[in-house]
Amino acid sequence: MIETPDNMHEDCGVAAVYGAKDAGNLCYLGLYSLQHRGQEAAGILSRDRKQFHGVKGEGLVSEVFSPKSVSRLKGDSAIGHVRYSTTGASDDNNIQPLYSKTAKGKIAIAHNGNLTNAHKLYKSLKEKGALFQSTVDSEVILHLLATSKQSEMSLALADALSKVEGAFSLVALVDDGIIAARDRHGFRPLVLGKRGPAYVVASETCALDLLNAKYIREIEPGELVKISASGIESFKIPVKLSPARCVFEHVYFSRPDSIVFGENVHLVRKAFGKALAKRHKFDADMVISIPDSGNSSALGYSEESGLPLEFGMMRNHYVGRTFIQPTQSIRNLRVKVKLNPIRAVLEGKRVVVIDDSIVRGTTSKQRVSAIRNAGAKEVHMLIASPPITHPCHFGIDTPNAEQLIASSKSIEEIREYISADSLAYLSKEDMLEAIQSIPSNEFCTACFDGKYPIKVPKKRSKFVFERSNKIHLWKAGSNA
Amino acid sequence: MIETPDNMHEDCGVAAVYGAKDAGNLCYLGLYSLQHRGQEAAGILSRDRKQFHGVKGEGLVSEVFSPKSVSRLKGDSAIGHVRYSTTGASDDNNIQPLYSKTAKGKIAIAHNGNLTNAHKLYKSLKEKGALFQSTVDSEVILHLLATSKQSEMSLALADALSKVEGAFSLVALVDDGIIAARDRHGFRPLVLGKRGPAYVVASETCALDLLNAKYIREIEPGELVKISASGIESFKIPVKLSPARCVFEHVYFSRPDSIVFGENVHLVRKAFGKALAKRHKFDADMVISIPDSGNSSALGYSEESGLPLEFGMMRNHYVGRTFIQPTQSIRNLRVKVKLNPIRAVLEGKRVVVIDDSIVRGTTSKQRVSAIRNAGAKEVHMLIASPPITHPCHFGIDTPNAEQLIASSKSIEEIREYISADSLAYLSKEDMLEAIQSIPSNEFCTACFDGKYPIKVPKKRSKFVFERSNKIHLWKAGSNA
Amino acid sequence: MIETPDNMHEDCGVAAVYGAKDAGNLCYLGLYSLQHRGQEAAGILSRDRKQFHGVKGEGLVSEVFSPKSVSRLKGDSAIGHVRYSTTGASDDNNIQPLYSKTAKGKIAIAHNGNLTNAHKLYKSLKEKGALFQSTVDSEVILHLLATSKQSEMSLALADALSKVEGAFSLVALVDDGIIAARDRHGFRPLVLGKRGPAYVVASETCALDLLNAKYIREIEPGELVKISASGIESFKIPVKLSPARCVFEHVYFSRPDSIVFGENVHLVRKAFGKALAKRHKFDADMVISIPDSGNSSALGYSEESGLPLEFGMMRNHYVGRTFIQPTQSIRNLRVKVKLNPIRAVLEGKRVVVIDDSIVRGTTSKQRVSAIRNAGAKEVHMLIASPPITHPCHFGIDTPNAEQLIASSKSIEEIREYISADSLAYLSKEDMLEAIQSIPSNEFCTACFDGKYPIKVPKKRSKFVFERSNKIHLWKAGSNA
Amino acid sequence: MIETPDNMHEDCGVAAVYGAKDAGNLCYLGLYSLQHRGQEAAGILSRDRKQFHGVKGEGLVSEVFSPKSVSRLKGDSAIGHVRYSTTGASDDNNIQPLYSKTAKGKIAIAHNGNLTNAHKLYKSLKEKGALFQSTVDSEVILHLLATSKQSEMSLALADALSKVEGAFSLVALVDDGIIAARDRHGFRPLVLGKRGPAYVVASETCALDLLNAKYIREIEPGELVKISASGIESFKIPVKLSPARCVFEHVYFSRPDSIVFGENVHLVRKAFGKALAKRHKFDADMVISIPDSGNSSALGYSEESGLPLEFGMMRNHYVGRTFIQPTQSIRNLRVKVKLNPIRAVLEGKRVVVIDDSIVRGTTSKQRVSAIRNAGAKEVHMLIASPPITHPCHFGIDTPNAEQLIASSKSIEEIREYISADSLAYLSKEDMLEAIQSIPSNEFCTACFDGKYPIKVPKKRSKFVFERSNKIHLWKAGSNA
Repeated sequence: MIETPDNMHEDCGVAAVYGAKDAGNLCYLGLYSLQHRGQEAAGILSRDRKQFHGVKGEGLVSEVFSPKSVSRLKGDSAIGHVRYSTTGASDDNNIQPLYSKTAKGKIAIAHNGNLTNAHKLYKSLKEKGALFQSTVDSEVILHLLATSKQSEMSLALADALSKVEGAFSLVALVDDGIIAARDRHGFRPLVLGKRGPAYVVASETCALDLLNAKYIREIEPGELVKISASGIESFKIPVKLSPARCVFEHVYFSRPDSIVFGENVHLVRKAFGKALAKRHKFDADMVISIPDSGNSSALGYSEESGLPLEFGMMRNHYVGRTFIQPTQSIRNLRVKVKLNPIRAVLEGKRVVVIDDSIVRGTTSKQRVSAIRNAGAKEVHMLIASPPITHPCHFGIDTPNAEQLIASSKSIEEIREYISADSLAYLSKEDMLEAIQSIPSNEFCTACFDGKYPIKVPKKRSKFVFERSNKIHLWKAGSNA
Repeated sequence: MIETPDNMHEDCGVAAVYGAKDAGNLCYLGLYSLQHRGQEAAGILSRDRKQFHGVKGEGLVSEVFSPKSVSRLKGDSAIGHVRYSTTGASDDNNIQPLYSKTAKGKIAIAHNGNLTNAHKLYKSLKEKGALFQSTVDSEVILHLLATSKQSEMSLALADALSKVEGAFSLVALVDDGIIAARDRHGFRPLVLGKRGPAYVVASETCALDLLNAKYIREIEPGELVKISASGIESFKIPVKLSPARCVFEHVYFSRPDSIVFGENVHLVRKAFGKALAKRHKFDADMVISIPDSGNSSALGYSEESGLPLEFGMMRNHYVGRTFIQPTQSIRNLRVKVKLNPIRAVLEGKRVVVIDDSIVRGTTSKQRVSAIRNAGAKEVHMLIASPPITHPCHFGIDTPNAEQLIASSKSIEEIREYISADSLAYLSKEDMLEAIQSIPSNEFCTACFDGKYPIKVPKKRSKFVFERSNKIHLWKAGSNA
Repeated sequence: MIETPDNMHEDCGVAAVYGAKDAGNLCYLGLYSLQHRGQEAAGILSRDRKQFHGVKGEGLVSEVFSPKSVSRLKGDSAIGHVRYSTTGASDDNNIQPLYSKTAKGKIAIAHNGNLTNAHKLYKSLKEKGALFQSTVDSEVILHLLATSKQSEMSLALADALSKVEGAFSLVALVDDGIIAARDRHGFRPLVLGKRGPAYVVASETCALDLLNAKYIREIEPGELVKISASGIESFKIPVKLSPARCVFEHVYFSRPDSIVFGENVHLVRKAFGKALAKRHKFDADMVISIPDSGNSSALGYSEESGLPLEFGMMRNHYVGRTFIQPTQSIRNLRVKVKLNPIRAVLEGKRVVVIDDSIVRGTTSKQRVSAIRNAGAKEVHMLIASPPITHPCHFGIDTPNAEQLIASSKSIEEIREYISADSLAYLSKEDMLEAIQSIPSNEFCTACFDGKYPIKVPKKRSKFVFERSNKIHLWKAGSNA
Repeated sequence: MIETPDNMHEDCGVAAVYGAKDAGNLCYLGLYSLQHRGQEAAGILSRDRKQFHGVKGEGLVSEVFSPKSVSRLKGDSAIGHVRYSTTGASDDNNIQPLYSKTAKGKIAIAHNGNLTNAHKLYKSLKEKGALFQSTVDSEVILHLLATSKQSEMSLALADALSKVEGAFSLVALVDDGIIAARDRHGFRPLVLGKRGPAYVVASETCALDLLNAKYIREIEPGELVKISASGIESFKIPVKLSPARCVFEHVYFSRPDSIVFGENVHLVRKAFGKALAKRHKFDADMVISIPDSGNSSALGYSEESGLPLEFGMMRNHYVGRTFIQPTQSIRNLRVKVKLNPIRAVLEGKRVVVIDDSIVRGTTSKQRVSAIRNAGAKEVHMLIASPPITHPCHFGIDTPNAEQLIASSKSIEEIREYISADSLAYLSKEDMLEAIQSIPSNEFCTACFDGKYPIKVPKKRSKFVFERSNKIHLWKAGSNA
């Protein structure tokens, strides 16, 4: 029995390096830092004067790359990608970066996000005779680029990007440099850094930190930046700007040590915890967090409320992606294999518990149960974000609306379902106020309020051919 | 040290099945029979009512397929391919069959042969915005088909095939059946068989034998056959016919138990041996063959000349694709690991030796030397084909002209080089006369006389992007 | 470039289950909880009525076992082992549990610890004609048992264990049950739990927690417990008791959520932090921990001192066992890939940093440097254990004495080396006083004071044949 | 569906090299030549001045060894082994050579044969406390040697070998040289050759041929030869000689190009064919062989009878160890995938067919059927050996007596079963007379007449622990 995760998942992370001797190796380290944004597959393409080199595979960055394969990523430019979601077929063609040789030159692209009009564009391109090799939406961009009337590569890419809708934070490797681009809403983060004479682009600043690169600025919504021997050139993708940054990057996805949309994530989350403390006080013995995503908010809560912080749940750092259930299933095993409540801390205590969010509710229910089994007398749950009521269409892997517990249940019903003594959420207003660097109206909060910044399809689309159109390619080899 | 083979190699073999319950499994068995036509990679695609299923990989058919993966090749139609040549990059995209979804429907193709104008077509397609995913010439056919003005699949394929030049014996899997087609010269064989209600197409009849399928006829040069629920439909590819079957299929490539171009290969080769016996008599003790390709001719020679046949060379049936040389290299190791001369048979004897052909001459030289070292007093070499003087451009992997010993040396010089006591070849006229079913002028004998049936490029082309345009994709995984 | 770890490592963890339907699967989950005690290899042997079943391999528990292989671990009894150290040769024979069939019955054993007289026993056994199959010290126990005059299995094992010296917390699987035994010093922990009708033995209680098993008691020093259909029988190994539990289990090895030697590790560490706070006060802005081993002590320090706790270092949860350095090495990369200091928290601040221990000092130096580079104005290091001056001979993988920085440098010299503004250690007395359940003289503190409870060899021995006596067995397979 | 082979199988082949720079590589090539004696597993151990090096694995020699692993087989001495039979458990411990370090020195051994008293010796050794690591009978020899009162290695080995009964042609690698030994019956072949200053020992002379080594002589029955820096020393194993060479080596097992028991196998088989021709004449059109084992006898038959030889069956050289049957099984597929009858040769013809032997009869039945389906009018089967009526206990893998068709059926009944028009066997007398170098009474013909040269157990034993005593060790790894 394999666990199905009960949380929201980032789809991807990207990194790019220009002008460094070991571009492939640096890119690999950048992906290492961005591993939390996608654990299913990883790929890097580099370019030297003569040609492109690539390594791609399923698994963690530490599994996909070896010293030997990294040493083959020659050249002073490279782009890389980590991916969360799999479309099922074990097909390396679906692992980014995607590569193509066009009459305009060679190009490889990798992107974080989700194109909402990909299927429509795909159908139209196919009718004109385009042959698709993957089932990822990035390929639509390549075909648009190859058939663009713009003959220069950067302009052709800007042209192509002006035709796609949705979320993309994209990096590209071209014959004479790298390109970084971000959709007109700026849904996903994308930052620019400098490392001596070299440039680094990445989804989060934690990648810059690891590489000793200095944070310069965000790639702006609707901006396309080309980095080459001529330095940095900034282009505007010919579309109307409409900033709508994803607030969930601060709530859960991004690493606490990253600067995202101009602000440190740990401090934002600590402010969430303080805001919770101002509204929700309990006559309790301690506050604990659900590690690690609740840690920052719990610290903020403790500081603001004066209630002592304790470590009541121990995280197992060696959890693999799956574990095997015995036939007589163990209660709460899925939760306990990751987090073990400490009886010596919790026994007989009234406990405030801080978690980052509730998705389906099943995990929260198990956690409350595990904490009670470890002896806690009262369990007061505080959630450092508003109730999630709507699915994401812009690059986050969420369950469908009907599986989101807050889409159909009131807070009191949820409290009852998870069997907590109390339950409260951070309000949308408190959340947005806690973030100082960006005006409230420049965030996308659709998962909390259903206000999608652009029209979205009725069904969330991962860009895939319909099932009947796909080829099922099975593994070869005598053991397969 | 890895041996480089000193013989000519077939590029490919193809098989297709329509209307059988276990089409994928039958196709796998067909490829099993055609393994001699290509040992580097194999692939099968099948189709059930809903979708295509595929298994592809590098290695022998017995290595690529497992009971589990064959069981996944669902449906009543399938096509398969075995390939000799590799283009270097470890890239499953280069293993046929190739698949694509077009606006005209889904299609997979596999072909045996070599398109002489592939590079020209590739450049032109790319300029129109086509993105290529492989470096095999078959993909040109897919792009031509996708952009053809014909909207019906069979007609669009015929249209595409009318634009390519060179050799192709092609099978295709489409939404409602299978297609088989052969170029206007009929360079490579392609036969049609029937197995109860099902149809089988294959490069050679030995595949039909294994499947208990009855041989019906050849697919004709310039013919496109569609097999579907409506039965068999025959189309003419809109090009001028110009039959030029490859005579080397009889000399070396095809299996002795196959019927090729209407005649059994073993009996044709036996006739080659008889023709040799009529022209070349020796005062000798025995005739032996270089197994197994010389066996049939040696038997014919013995029958006609009355000289007793002996088995003087033992073939090792467990030779892998490579073997490892010690640092102090062993003389003639490459030859002896495959063929061990039997001293008890050869010692003190005058021996006539029949081989099928001489390519570079290095192997023949080693064989003569090994036979002498085993005690033979005289070695008279007879070659059951004419001297090879020109490279093939139509699907056979030959060395360049300068490496063909007969392109620059006289027969006497070759005899001296290989240190034989005598050396004689079968004449082109005797060879063609020994084949009764096809008129002499309907064969391609270009490798013996340089008379190419169509204009060929100066350099033989395997269809590849130039080296600088290719991406080098390395293996992922911690051991890579 | 592969990192060499700069900390002390537990050699092993063990688990055993008796009387449960899914004993193999439960044992696997137990090992999952004990993964922190050994990440190099894992193995489980189970027994049903007919025979023993086993799965062993190199890697993490999640890598070694699959649903299929766990399902093959049939029967109601099982024992398992995780191992840290490798002896180099890729030889499954060296992965525990070891199995043997003797005239007294079948037995498999797994142990955590290190036998100090193994080499002497090995030589003597070999002279009597014993053939060894592994290079792990556990095999000595098997040979002693096979040649023991005791014919009953439990008594023969007790007899064998009375002859070995050093540390062992051992589990065994025999024809009619399981056995657990602990050396007369009780160096390593070993606990007994109950899960319905079944029994569970494990190195730490965190394994009992995961399995919903209730903690009963420790296996006592010098005790051998047999669990079978007859229930629990306790034997005394015929040796003199001399309790000397390893205090480092509380300092670093054991999980904070475990009860070790009768006390919760997190609370012990918190008490260490409080003790530090009583002795060492600073005019600082915050206390941070080196996650995760310093967390509990930092919390204790904060509580006692009133200095606010902050999260100043972010741990990357996806660090693989190795990572690849670029040719132009990045400063402090090894440290930063695991722990990223958060500039937004540290900039301009005076910081008290709590770490669990200092081994070579190189890592501490890099951490201090990284914290300063992130903007900290002052760095005051506090170590929640005494200076390590001597290597361990009882199952912990420590560097040799000369590599232990505190063996040759004063605290002031160490402070200077790591470039901290202050440095202080917990005293041995404070450490032992913080632990309430065990008298101070029943701990082994040899790594802090050199007082080894038994005579130790001059060189620490992992039991290995001398290099010249080992066979080098290389990997087979065409890619090896 | 996996084919179960219907023929008798050699258990093993051995090779050894002393005094050559590339001993490991030469040994590998020797095994390459002996691959027909065992295809399931292979192993080589070499020794340089310091230590032993080894590579072992399941599969063909070409699969087990790679250039890299062969380069690791350092030193000037090596021994190797190929094995046919598997005992089921995927356990490298069961792959020879076996290695052990004893108080007398280090030793590795590999043997071809079967010890008939292995189980008895195993039980007695175990009672004395010996621990066994494998389930192959060779290990008994190691334990006998380790506990022998002889302290010198050669003498201790001779002592150990004097206690085992049955068949062994053994090679050993010791600290100062190699050892070769053969049981007192000389069941299996073992030859000595010289290659410049180096010595080579092998099961058959074909291995000497490949290495350019000169054949010197057989290792004699009951002889132990030590080869070291002191040259060749010959010892007598202290047992009574009783020569009983296996005649089946000439009938089927050995390669036609080998000299076995002093005579070339091809010429012996040709003499078998001539003897058949003297007794059995037919009014037929041709004689064909079942390739390749019937080839030599068919040539002899043709020469003696004057009936023309034809090649009526084509052998597929690319048959893997298994192939996959479709659900609607194809008639005679197992036979046809290996041998395709050529209709063009057989149609309308009366055919004499020569095969080497009949075991169960099922394969012969299918072959006769396939030949008839290809059009043959009459099929006269001649078998170049007597009817097989008894199983082998001396190293050949035969079915049990009840599965041997000739154990219960008369020749006429067998003819009827296989549906041949005639059937005749070579008589035992004619067979033995055709071999000139060895007196008739010095052969073992037990499989033809049940006269076992020594007492044999009621059940043929592969030395294995009873099933209930074995451990089932399953493959580790996330895909296992």
